[in-house]
Amino acid sequence: MTNLKIAADVIADQNDKRSSAHKADFAALGEKLARSNIDIEAITAKVADFFVAVPSWGVGTGGTRFARFPGPGEPRHIFDKLDDCSVIQQLTRATPTVSLHIPWDKADPKELKAKGDALGLGFDAMNSNTFSDAPDQAHSYKYGSLSHVDAATRAQAVEHNLECIELGNAIGARALTVWIGDGSNFPGQSNFTRQFERYLDSMRNIYKALPDDWRLFSEHKMYEPAFYSTVVQDWGTNYMIAQTLGEKAFCLVDLGHHAPNTNIEMIVARLIQFGKLGGFHFNDSKYGDDDLDAGSVEPYRLFLVFNELVDAEHRGVKGFNPAHMIDQSHNVTDPIESLIASANEIRRAYAQALLVDRLRLEGFQNENDALMATETLKHAYRTDVEPILAEARQRAGGAIDPIATYRASGYRTRVAAERPAIKGSSGGIV
Amino acid sequence: MTNLKIAADVIADQNDKRSSAHKADFAALGEKLARSNIDIEAITAKVADFFVAVPSWGVGTGGTRFARFPGPGEPRHIFDKLDDCSVIQQLTRATPTVSLHIPWDKADPKELKAKGDALGLGFDAMNSNTFSDAPDQAHSYKYGSLSHVDAATRAQAVEHNLECIELGNAIGARALTVWIGDGSNFPGQSNFTRQFERYLDSMRNIYKALPDDWRLFSEHKMYEPAFYSTVVQDWGTNYMIAQTLGEKAFCLVDLGHHAPNTNIEMIVARLIQFGKLGGFHFNDSKYGDDDLDAGSVEPYRLFLVFNELVDAEHRGVKGFNPAHMIDQSHNVTDPIESLIASANEIRRAYAQALLVDRLRLEGFQNENDALMATETLKHAYRTDVEPILAEARQRAGGAIDPIATYRASGYRTRVAAERPAIKGSSGGIV
Amino acid sequence: MTNLKIAADVIADQNDKRSSAHKADFAALGEKLARSNIDIEAITAKVADFFVAVPSWGVGTGGTRFARFPGPGEPRHIFDKLDDCSVIQQLTRATPTVSLHIPWDKADPKELKAKGDALGLGFDAMNSNTFSDAPDQAHSYKYGSLSHVDAATRAQAVEHNLECIELGNAIGARALTVWIGDGSNFPGQSNFTRQFERYLDSMRNIYKALPDDWRLFSEHKMYEPAFYSTVVQDWGTNYMIAQTLGEKAFCLVDLGHHAPNTNIEMIVARLIQFGKLGGFHFNDSKYGDDDLDAGSVEPYRLFLVFNELVDAEHRGVKGFNPAHMIDQSHNVTDPIESLIASANEIRRAYAQALLVDRLRLEGFQNENDALMATETLKHAYRTDVEPILAEARQRAGGAIDPIATYRASGYRTRVAAERPAIKGSSGGIV
Amino acid sequence: MTNLKIAADVIADQNDKRSSAHKADFAALGEKLARSNIDIEAITAKVADFFVAVPSWGVGTGGTRFARFPGPGEPRHIFDKLDDCSVIQQLTRATPTVSLHIPWDKADPKELKAKGDALGLGFDAMNSNTFSDAPDQAHSYKYGSLSHVDAATRAQAVEHNLECIELGNAIGARALTVWIGDGSNFPGQSNFTRQFERYLDSMRNIYKALPDDWRLFSEHKMYEPAFYSTVVQDWGTNYMIAQTLGEKAFCLVDLGHHAPNTNIEMIVARLIQFGKLGGFHFNDSKYGDDDLDAGSVEPYRLFLVFNELVDAEHRGVKGFNPAHMIDQSHNVTDPIESLIASANEIRRAYAQALLVDRLRLEGFQNENDALMATETLKHAYRTDVEPILAEARQRAGGAIDPIATYRASGYRTRVAAERPAIKGSSGGIV
Repeated sequence: MTNLKIAADVIADQNDKRSSAHKADFAALGEKLARSNIDIEAITAKVADFFVAVPSWGVGTGGTRFARFPGPGEPRHIFDKLDDCSVIQQLTRATPTVSLHIPWDKADPKELKAKGDALGLGFDAMNSNTFSDAPDQAHSYKYGSLSHVDAATRAQAVEHNLECIELGNAIGARALTVWIGDGSNFPGQSNFTRQFERYLDSMRNIYKALPDDWRLFSEHKMYEPAFYSTVVQDWGTNYMIAQTLGEKAFCLVDLGHHAPNTNIEMIVARLIQFGKLGGFHFNDSKYGDDDLDAGSVEPYRLFLVFNELVDAEHRGVKGFNPAHMIDQSHNVTDPIESLIASANEIRRAYAQALLVDRLRLEGFQNENDALMATETLKHAYRTDVEPILAEARQRAGGAIDPIATYRASGYRTRVAAERPAIKGSSGGIV
Repeated sequence: MTNLKIAADVIADQNDKRSSAHKADFAALGEKLARSNIDIEAITAKVADFFVAVPSWGVGTGGTRFARFPGPGEPRHIFDKLDDCSVIQQLTRATPTVSLHIPWDKADPKELKAKGDALGLGFDAMNSNTFSDAPDQAHSYKYGSLSHVDAATRAQAVEHNLECIELGNAIGARALTVWIGDGSNFPGQSNFTRQFERYLDSMRNIYKALPDDWRLFSEHKMYEPAFYSTVVQDWGTNYMIAQTLGEKAFCLVDLGHHAPNTNIEMIVARLIQFGKLGGFHFNDSKYGDDDLDAGSVEPYRLFLVFNELVDAEHRGVKGFNPAHMIDQSHNVTDPIESLIASANEIRRAYAQALLVDRLRLEGFQNENDALMATETLKHAYRTDVEPILAEARQRAGGAIDPIATYRASGYRTRVAAERPAIKGSSGGIV
Repeated sequence: MTNLKIAADVIADQNDKRSSAHKADFAALGEKLARSNIDIEAITAKVADFFVAVPSWGVGTGGTRFARFPGPGEPRHIFDKLDDCSVIQQLTRATPTVSLHIPWDKADPKELKAKGDALGLGFDAMNSNTFSDAPDQAHSYKYGSLSHVDAATRAQAVEHNLECIELGNAIGARALTVWIGDGSNFPGQSNFTRQFERYLDSMRNIYKALPDDWRLFSEHKMYEPAFYSTVVQDWGTNYMIAQTLGEKAFCLVDLGHHAPNTNIEMIVARLIQFGKLGGFHFNDSKYGDDDLDAGSVEPYRLFLVFNELVDAEHRGVKGFNPAHMIDQSHNVTDPIESLIASANEIRRAYAQALLVDRLRLEGFQNENDALMATETLKHAYRTDVEPILAEARQRAGGAIDPIATYRASGYRTRVAAERPAIKGSSGGIV
Repeated sequence: MTNLKIAADVIADQNDKRSSAHKADFAALGEKLARSNIDIEAITAKVADFFVAVPSWGVGTGGTRFARFPGPGEPRHIFDKLDDCSVIQQLTRATPTVSLHIPWDKADPKELKAKGDALGLGFDAMNSNTFSDAPDQAHSYKYGSLSHVDAATRAQAVEHNLECIELGNAIGARALTVWIGDGSNFPGQSNFTRQFERYLDSMRNIYKALPDDWRLFSEHKMYEPAFYSTVVQDWGTNYMIAQTLGEKAFCLVDLGHHAPNTNIEMIVARLIQFGKLGGFHFNDSKYGDDDLDAGSVEPYRLFLVFNELVDAEHRGVKGFNPAHMIDQSHNVTDPIESLIASANEIRRAYAQALLVDRLRLEGFQNENDALMATETLKHAYRTDVEPILAEARQRAGGAIDPIATYRASGYRTRVAAERPAIKGSSGGIV
């Protein structure tokens, strides 16, 4: 592990500074939890064993259709991106895998594997891209990809997904995530039924090529880039897809892809119950697919999602094994910092959900004691579990305060010097 | 038919007054359509054959949780309601059936049948009610009905549905609509999964009792009366239900029961494609389950829903036979007038959808000519089909202008004299 | 104070049981805060001095337009309601005032005052009711009240508000809250401009009658009971009203009265900046005007609102003095328990907001360090301030755990025996 | 006018083909309207006199943050754009002015003026751009522009607006539209109050430089590109701005910039009533700022907006003179076709609103006859006014069917040959 990007002594120094306060906090929390018969060590161990994948595209500065404002030291290619991802993992010890996006991250699989090994990183779900045109692509996706009216365009989109599987297989990935932008901007532009039939047909061809130990995740989204209708618009359609394709097909839930006011945790529960929850794209949103940092706007909602996940574990749901991935766009922060903070928030929600007294909760539910039932959730949620998160990080070699340690490391300044600024990246599309 | 409530000469007189203008309009439209090779007679015949059921509860003045403001001549019981419903049918010839709500409309089936026969009315889907407590009911539905934690309460709710089937069977109904208010007001109040398991179990017991020629409609709704979660919250859950129960189980779509911004016509298309569209509760809404008059706020949306229905007919979808029902709450209008107007609007959307040139549309869709595709829909939608609607009514014995004719008939004044005002304006429950 | 409804020894016994754990928690939190140079005593003192008014109508079980499910011991009249309110105050010491709703709470002012004095309760803002018809009222509000097309109906509604001021003045209230249901259910039903002119004219007449030391609060709401348009639909219109009327007129913000996705804390900031924030109706909502318990669904949003209030205090905004009131509907809980819990949540949000390091926050804001700025808020929000809240209650004579103490007191059982059940569960109007 | 881009004989030929059918339709409509005492000539004259400005940026293919799919013959600069705009005007005779966006359209004012004169085009409101960084700009707008914490950045943004005024003044524009992307992506990132104070201060400096015969339009938008808060987030804040700045400051309403479910026509009414409606950015939307073609998704809403405008004219509101502009993004259509269709839809809504019988409407409103009031609007809306629109176009030298004529002209093929394809314009920002 000599290739890690943050010098070990920087982490050690930073941890030393915070050690005594952290120890006091951890001890105090341990005592408080003990009074409720909760063993802090057991919780810490579970948290230390919880991981979430980082998206390769997340380490670059995001943008909107109006503009993109790059930061210093933007990664130039997948190898730079892996360096950045490794920093997140080194400090948080919560993100040992990276999710690639093809063709953006296309590279020789051996080199990818070697780079990952050197950085201690593995590869999570592969992501195909048929929502934009790659240079020199034969058929444009302007009017759709997997659901396009033209068979050749659909075949090209299917082929691209097969290529993603092949590359992923070579580097140890075990899942393919398919999100498409297909839809329509005008009533009547597409025949909903014919379009969905074509989509299902294309997906069947992808599914056929899926290795036995792989899973296929389809991802729904209400709107954008299509603004009147979207082919995979909600979890209902997504469930139809997973059911149509077969037992290796599952639904991916992105927290920002729902209609206003939607009760997302309930969708999670339904998909678990019917055996079709594939996993998550974690992020937060206030309006649409805002791709904000996980837990930054509605932290209690994130907790309620994890409450369902821990409840499923608690109930011993057979085959329950959702994939955890982050999918965010970082427009005004250092992307590495946002991903560190988000990984923490996701673990925080998990830790809080672990603290829920489920026997007590079940009792209140059975007595229709709504007030004490909800108070049981709130009691767990209100617990400041930061000492547990810090302890889990530290024990695994990470940082008590990963953001401060990252800043102290000077990593961003270093890569800014190495990586030339990308000129003219502003979009300005209105 | 001597029992009809509006004197035949009132209708005749009113039609006479409007006859010449109507004839001119019908002829002019016929000529215009002929230029596009559309036979106005064929359209008129199809419209005349399109029917929508009236809800018995819709002829009373509705209300909100804040107040109910009754109007004159409120119906006192199901027999008054049937009188009112017959007026709607007599003038529009579009509403030959009534949908009952039990226990509100509970009565001797023979008397119901006789009254219906006398008025020329049949009976559409039965509606059970387990969202409020009937007097002297053994178990309260305060904390749920079909999904209640208590087995005895669930059994009572199942039993009530069986009673609805039995009564319905005796009067010629062929469907049961189940809408429940079960859900929760607080995170944690209910375990989503356990609650839905109980619901499905109860529904299986109802389904078992369903006669062979009946259909079971489950109805989803995002929220209200439960304000944190609702058991049957959206079409995804509704689809799971219909699929779990069997081939006589279908999803009912109420146009006002969706999340903000939802593309409802697309849900309709999906349910048709997967063989699970049961039918509709027509109404309109701007905010939530507003239960406004059909087509009053977003008429193009109603047209787009009918565009899917006519497209399914056009494609020859096997077994396609959705039930059409109105479900509205009339707070500031004479309910009879609102139901007349709504039946007209629903037929209007159907007539406009029939005018869509589907071959041309398909051509534009296949060429990705979004602008001309949407213009093809708009061209049909912009046609003022009122002459066709009027002609269909008149030919069947109804009124050219049913609202004006209703007003001229003095029916409301007459029943106001016969039916004493209901004291205590509180209530407002629809 | 011999009239208090919970025996002093019940509170003492219950506090004794929890005393040692509470002391440990309070001490541990004190130490932790001290490390950040925060004096827990100063925070506790501020919290102890923060109060929120209880709505008289909140102690009865609420309902929806579909049903109302009463609980045991429902208050029969304002004097029962005041008893219930005094229990909330006795246990929380956070709710020393009650907000009355006329005509529901109409009574002899001397008796009201005497009852309040005996229970240690004062009176907060008066609420008029022109959204439902009182028995024997000359003019109906079916088509509006303060904005009705008919001058006599408007005059009656104005007169009712003057009566509320008069009664309020006699019992020590110093504000009038005006919420109306006026609006329309159909496009074209009302002329928006004429309707608003009439509203403003009526409000001017009410404003004229306002004593010098009173404030007038107008309350906006997006929809319900009107479902196409509402006269005072949002804060923009509300601001126009307050500005038109004069310096004693202010805007009231109910947290559940906004469009989906609205950033409410920003509205609060704008109204403070322009000197027109009158106060709050606290509650929580997921969909519409759900009237759920404060902080039960989106606790971080409640915190962000209080962050604005504490920021305004911090900046020393001149004349800043918002009124704090709860406005909730309790359908599935004991209303007393929900109000206790809500008062706690409101104080919790206030306490958390007090912990924000505002100098540090301002620094990050000035450096565009978005990540650390938001982390500064989160750091305060994550602090479990329950020990501070409990300490503030206990020191003032209240309960460490007010819900448990309430249950131990047997109050509900006692009043259930005294107060006969209200027959006829229909109603549900809140 | 020898420079017009569509040959006169193409228009003449196309009109000839449609002339007889058009004449028949116009005559039939004239007769029908005459029966209601409406003079089709008077309506046609009013429609012919109604104009809407075309946005220069609208003639290029739009895009989303995910991709942009260019079409053939994309305009390379403002002079190409003006050519395209002139085609829209030549065929519709509804769009005699163009709204420029600076710096995108920056050019020598004399050349701009000369080009406009040659094409018969004038210039409408100028649009400044401080939501993206221009190359070589001294200070970045990443963290805001007019509300930035840094005074130099604010000064630069002010200066840019002054430059827009100067250029606009030289070419005959008489208004400046200011839309900014300033806001925040995280709670706490910005202090709402300080940020708005800075914004107002910057705007005051712009306002000071405004020529006497100019108007300043501020434009609100709920979200995007900022995803937690936006400085000018809604019409309430927008109204505060216009009021603070002075009598030349007005609010601009973009139909797609509102919260879900918002009643936009009511906002229009309020701004008219308080003298602050500046004008419109017309478009349509289903989800967010979708920038779809005007009237394509919710045509009745567009009609209801025009109903307010015509009502204001009818009431003789003093100083009523809103600016009409289109603001759309065309991702899947030929932008010229979309703008032609949109100009038609806007005129259609105006024509329909002119047909409303306002005396009759007022009568129904005064009698609380909600049903007939809304039917009065619907009656006008249902009228197929296409013959009036076609007649107005033809009389002014435009096309009976402008889309068909545009296609027949071969303009797009011609410019595609002249203008090289823009390489690598895809954005692909996620």
